[in-house]
Amino acid sequence: MRMYSSKTAPNPRRVRIFLAEKGIDMTYVDLDLKQGDNRTAEFMAKNMFAKVPVLELDDGTCISETMAICRYFDLQHPEPPLLGQSPIEVATIEMWQRRVEIHLMTFVGFAFRHLTGFFADRETVVKPWGEESLKRAAAVYQLLDSRLSESRFIAGESYSVADITALCAIDFAKIVELRIEDSQPNLLRWHHEVSGRPSAQA
Amino acid sequence: MRMYSSKTAPNPRRVRIFLAEKGIDMTYVDLDLKQGDNRTAEFMAKNMFAKVPVLELDDGTCISETMAICRYFDLQHPEPPLLGQSPIEVATIEMWQRRVEIHLMTFVGFAFRHLTGFFADRETVVKPWGEESLKRAAAVYQLLDSRLSESRFIAGESYSVADITALCAIDFAKIVELRIEDSQPNLLRWHHEVSGRPSAQA
Repeated sequence: MRMYSSKTAPNPRRVRIFLAEKGIDMTYVDLDLKQGDNRTAEFMAKNMFAKVPVLELDDGTCISETMAICRYFDLQHPEPPLLGQSPIEVATIEMWQRRVEIHLMTFVGFAFRHLTGFFADRETVVKPWGEESLKRAAAVYQLLDSRLSESRFIAGESYSVADITALCAIDFAKIVELRIEDSQPNLLRWHHEVSGRPSAQA
Repeated sequence: MRMYSSKTAPNPRRVRIFLAEKGIDMTYVDLDLKQGDNRTAEFMAKNMFAKVPVLELDDGTCISETMAICRYFDLQHPEPPLLGQSPIEVATIEMWQRRVEIHLMTFVGFAFRHLTGFFADRETVVKPWGEESLKRAAAVYQLLDSRLSESRFIAGESYSVADITALCAIDFAKIVELRIEDSQPNLLRWHHEVSGRPSAQA
């Protein structure tokens, strides 16, 4: 079993942190996305969408998409629970994971791609969309600060995959100069705590 | 228990089809998104992100995000399985659900918003992004046609939530004049089959 990954991209980091929290060892194969390692015929046979991370099982089966990989391991290694246990816990964590992913991480990604033109050799760059995306991502910081005034972690009192997604999105956002503001003390407090977990170094 | 929904929006339809497939009755409260029913203080207390669908439980707890709601019901009504059962099934369905959602449905949504300016009263419209999004969505039709040359349904031989997401995205895409091409016979065959299920009318 091995994981096709990238040291600098935020989605592979989500999986690395998830597996570190679960105590699962993994062999990582690092791809250079800028060089197009993810766009070779060989890699696209593993994932036609040319994205990392991809988990390759020993029988050659490939699973892509961050949350699909996390869920695959969670079912086999339920402890510690990062996706919830009861229906209401599972739904609450999924809700927050998706809010952070859809409304924050996606826009951080668009801001990066459309402001820096990092992948201009392979995709159309729309700078006004990069500028708009940055504003939308910044607005979510304020919502998260509000949420974290009432709970220790993003989905509640326990650390979950929603915290992993948020940490990876917020750390990656520094590349487009988006940072937690001093006026967001709850988000700062949370970021300090989750960054201090050993998994954050994975 | 009740579900805040919208008759025309694609995400509420995903939940309606999911519940119809499970045979779960629900009381729907229809919001007029164009009129801003989702942006009142009362509704935003249920979902600070102002999105539908939102499931409100009898104790007042609100769960938003389509897949969080689906998962909440799936854990309590596992039959028929729409999210998979074994770890590899669960991961494969999640992979395809997310591919369709992230690479198709998201871009159909951006094409709609940024080409028609439907929500121009409340968000910045970037027309070149609408044009680019439409191209990206169209490219996924080709990938899905290829995928459906090798399997009956999107995630494999069984109908799953990935089919629900794809159906809702593809039907909604007609609003921006994106349709399955005659040159995509596998996608046409699949669309005919899943549209014929009673749940598609939900």
